Amino acid sequence: MTMRDDAIFLHQFIDSYPDWPVKGTTFRDLTRLYQSASALHRVVSTLKGRYIDADLSHIAAIEARGFIVGGMLAASLNLPLVLIRKGDKLAGKPLQQQVEMAYGTRQMQLRRDACQPGDRVVIFDDLVATGGSIIGASTLLKELGAEIHEVATVAEIPDEGCRDMIGSADISLFSLVAFENR
Amino acid sequence: MTMRDDAIFLHQFIDSYPDWPVKGTTFRDLTRLYQSASALHRVVSTLKGRYIDADLSHIAAIEARGFIVGGMLAASLNLPLVLIRKGDKLAGKPLQQQVEMAYGTRQMQLRRDACQPGDRVVIFDDLVATGGSIIGASTLLKELGAEIHEVATVAEIPDEGCRDMIGSADISLFSLVAFENR
Repeated sequence: MTMRDDAIFLHQFIDSYPDWPVKGTTFRDLTRLYQSASALHRVVSTLKGRYIDADLSHIAAIEARGFIVGGMLAASLNLPLVLIRKGDKLAGKPLQQQVEMAYGTRQMQLRRDACQPGDRVVIFDDLVATGGSIIGASTLLKELGAEIHEVATVAEIPDEGCRDMIGSADISLFSLVAFENR
Repeated sequence: MTMRDDAIFLHQFIDSYPDWPVKGTTFRDLTRLYQSASALHRVVSTLKGRYIDADLSHIAAIEARGFIVGGMLAASLNLPLVLIRKGDKLAGKPLQQQVEMAYGTRQMQLRRDACQPGDRVVIFDDLVATGGSIIGASTLLKELGAEIHEVATVAEIPDEGCRDMIGSADISLFSLVAFENR
């Protein structure tokens, strides 16, 4: 199975909603992909194969939908799962970061004991558009001394600028499906 | 390994924050449990053992932290994962339900193609306190004709009234850890 096969297979499970939630953007919805056991298996199996020899210490998953495949990937690699939360949901004194996202500014949070220097982390989110959440997550993880091995996603929207933004932070992005237009 | 062993083992990964986020309630935080590969494995393996012969068609997971173990459980049983979203995040014309939760009223949403009559579903959330989210989720799933086999959770707060609320809807609740006081 090639990456191209993955893209063709997975594409059929992603719904597109033009002008939602705001005019001018097309919402790519992966909810139906999660409703397919075989699509889920395909996603996790490809990611597991990619990272099994990468000597990772953690998978970091971005709230909320990133938790789904991020968690499955962590379980399949027998790695700890680090949660990147949005808003003000972590008790204690978490690390915090204000982030520019597609529909406004949000706060992102991370527990201070999530990682330590020397850790090697893959960040997962199910869809990457502007890349704002990814930059926020990597900033938090780097504050703890962790190294970002790669960012992984199911669906990438290149026209939203994520490659430039993530590339300028010297982080590589791996996506299973890329959408050509907004 | 007994259920009692699970409870003792998992308890050490759950942090308690008195008077957070509001005075009078103790916040039980499972974030550190997700940061342990062995704790995650223990949770998923116990739940998988419980449901492997239950003839389930789907696992339903409640946003956001329910997505983590809900997803892992679906993957381990090779079942589709149904997302119960909070707020107004699903495009199209999802089923909607207003729900009383611990800190106010929220909307819950479900895709109309998530389930159909004859389906047998386990609902997962990582923590069950008042039971409001569970009732919301089960109402949505039943609207599609699905049968609720059981509700599964890691941590139950019995004093918040969840047993009564869920029991009065004739749904059974399975928890790995129960906290005696608020």
